[in-house]
Amino acid sequence: MRSFFKVKTAHEVLESLKDTHPLGVEPVNITSALNRVLARDIVSSEDIPGFQRSTVDGYALDARDTFGATEGLPTPLAIVGEVKMGQVPDFGVKRGECAPVSTGGMLPQGADAVVMVEYAQDIEETVVEITRPVSPLENVILADDDVKEGQIILHKGTLLRAQDLGVLAGLGIEAVEVFRRPRAAIISTGEEIVDITEKPEPGQVRDINSYTVGGLCTGLGVKPIYLGIAGDSFEDLKVLFEKGLSQADVILLSGGSSVGAKDMTLDLFLSFADVELVAHGVSISPGKPTIIARKGNQTLWGLPGHPVSAMIIFDVFLRYLFARLSGLADPAGYYRHTVEAELDRNIESAGGREDYIRVKLVTEDGKLVAKPILGKSGLISTMVEADGIMKIDMNTEGLYRGDTVRVRLF
Amino acid sequence: MRSFFKVKTAHEVLESLKDTHPLGVEPVNITSALNRVLARDIVSSEDIPGFQRSTVDGYALDARDTFGATEGLPTPLAIVGEVKMGQVPDFGVKRGECAPVSTGGMLPQGADAVVMVEYAQDIEETVVEITRPVSPLENVILADDDVKEGQIILHKGTLLRAQDLGVLAGLGIEAVEVFRRPRAAIISTGEEIVDITEKPEPGQVRDINSYTVGGLCTGLGVKPIYLGIAGDSFEDLKVLFEKGLSQADVILLSGGSSVGAKDMTLDLFLSFADVELVAHGVSISPGKPTIIARKGNQTLWGLPGHPVSAMIIFDVFLRYLFARLSGLADPAGYYRHTVEAELDRNIESAGGREDYIRVKLVTEDGKLVAKPILGKSGLISTMVEADGIMKIDMNTEGLYRGDTVRVRLF
Repeated sequence: MRSFFKVKTAHEVLESLKDTHPLGVEPVNITSALNRVLARDIVSSEDIPGFQRSTVDGYALDARDTFGATEGLPTPLAIVGEVKMGQVPDFGVKRGECAPVSTGGMLPQGADAVVMVEYAQDIEETVVEITRPVSPLENVILADDDVKEGQIILHKGTLLRAQDLGVLAGLGIEAVEVFRRPRAAIISTGEEIVDITEKPEPGQVRDINSYTVGGLCTGLGVKPIYLGIAGDSFEDLKVLFEKGLSQADVILLSGGSSVGAKDMTLDLFLSFADVELVAHGVSISPGKPTIIARKGNQTLWGLPGHPVSAMIIFDVFLRYLFARLSGLADPAGYYRHTVEAELDRNIESAGGREDYIRVKLVTEDGKLVAKPILGKSGLISTMVEADGIMKIDMNTEGLYRGDTVRVRLF
Repeated sequence: MRSFFKVKTAHEVLESLKDTHPLGVEPVNITSALNRVLARDIVSSEDIPGFQRSTVDGYALDARDTFGATEGLPTPLAIVGEVKMGQVPDFGVKRGECAPVSTGGMLPQGADAVVMVEYAQDIEETVVEITRPVSPLENVILADDDVKEGQIILHKGTLLRAQDLGVLAGLGIEAVEVFRRPRAAIISTGEEIVDITEKPEPGQVRDINSYTVGGLCTGLGVKPIYLGIAGDSFEDLKVLFEKGLSQADVILLSGGSSVGAKDMTLDLFLSFADVELVAHGVSISPGKPTIIARKGNQTLWGLPGHPVSAMIIFDVFLRYLFARLSGLADPAGYYRHTVEAELDRNIESAGGREDYIRVKLVTEDGKLVAKPILGKSGLISTMVEADGIMKIDMNTEGLYRGDTVRVRLF
């Protein structure tokens, strides 16, 4: 039984993952680009909208003609044409003239503002009375108001949102180059683990980690490759692991929970060429028995066997790693949102490690209250019950009832 | 030009969508079930883990044998066997006896606790000295600690998270019944709108709304069906719309922005049998020129032509509607997270309507500050710049610099 000889802090592990570089680049149609990460800056090749547009239904005119107009003393203007949607007006507007225009229509030559239809009275077929003044450019979008030619409209490393797809559409960009999505091979080990299609004998349990870890991958757009459960021999495990290395960027071995299984994981990792051990144990609870190694830009993970521990290790490290592999400029985009809540009981914490506590959130007297769930980390049901997790820092020995805590939501 | 004769408040619209019922039910494998909504309660058919397990590497024993044990006065116990992972021990442990067990291993008959290996000294091959007492059940998971047979472990209407998939796996449930995902037909209209593959002439703009609205759908797991841009005749539009009605649960017509186009949308909606008008205008800014109708459980939407307005209408109403159609017990699951921030300038708001303000969030002196972006609603770039939106209630006439506001994040 080997001791954990290379226990690292969370900070140290994150530092050693920092130089992981983004995967390749591939083009995708913008209808498939939501939540993908841009691999190039997008520079606008034209102005949007490209012409002066009305933002209201009304009358296009020279703003100076409306100065001083009131309901009591309206200004009459001659209607000299009508703006047709989607067309360049084949007439101009001079002083004393105007032309009806719909929202989105192009301003005729000579017009610099639009009076809303509510402030114009039809007098006869060719005359309208304006009852309120407008300033020049009022109710008008200029040719380059939305996007200017040559402007960087979206930066490399952006996680694409619906509005980002909209601006790409506006520029006529049908496909963009994005970083390839990471692939994660998922393997379970442990002599006590059976496939979910099997009825476990006493002493056996079904594989839970493949599905929790696979679900967390899917939630980030990472493709999980389910390789199943390794037999109980080192050679069987090695064969499956080689398969993972040939197909995936990240290999997630959700290990047997015994120290013997961990020893086998460590031996396995070190049996490959060019593997560098990053951590053999991390100062996080739950989650300590984690083994991390790198092989170039691939990372090898021996996750804890306890389902809760494995999920917390994913949250602390793998979100960050997948953000790096995905080329995300701000890895925070792959973390979940947090809320502040009031702690409803004292919690002790051992020094020298980060503690992650599952909490249920309830609203009491209009305040958000965090109720710690203190079940063992082998119990997946405690995660089902929880709404999020909170961290107790390494140098904090505990928290008091009534303290404000930050909860990361599931 | 018809006036908006049936302007509704946001509350009234949401009320009238309340009886929309969930779509059909379909089975999915749990590897594809993330973010799907459960259509049935899940009742556990067995206990998990199903047997008494050790949560540590150590020695299984009768806790009473350890009472009083110290480093100075350790208790010697006879080793009577070794627990093998995944197997039922073929021996029992009596008073004065113990057996090594790994994390996850099954406790032998007679043992009720496990002492961690750190508190046991090997003396000779068959004797170990215990240096610390344990209580009964210490370091042990009981047969039904995680899940009890007959317990409702997940409720109908749950949005499935990674840990929920884990508990399903633990129960041996390979596939679950979930509600079918809604389908949304997306059509653009407006004589000034051209497809993104075309180079717009002066007076024309490319279709933006199909892609912003389609992206918002995709983000909720709703399948967008892009039907393209309707020609400028009522009949062309009607043909496309009928196609939408035959394929989708929700028809999103991102309308031309002019009043004339809106009139055509209204006429179109009312030209179908069994259509009931829900709203012709909503008291929301931006977003007022919205037309909503129902045809049984299908809803028909004439979205505003301005991209920002259309996105806000989606946020306020369509998230809720898709939550209903998806069978989500708590529609909040389809809204985005919010943060509190300090407003950095005064904002006026007209009474009698809800105002939605785009904001950029920045951290200043450790505080989150909300900076309103006040560009026109025709400018998609203002949404690209924004990090979220804040609402000014109907009965609030404005907000002051320094007020705490709640920002819904993109």
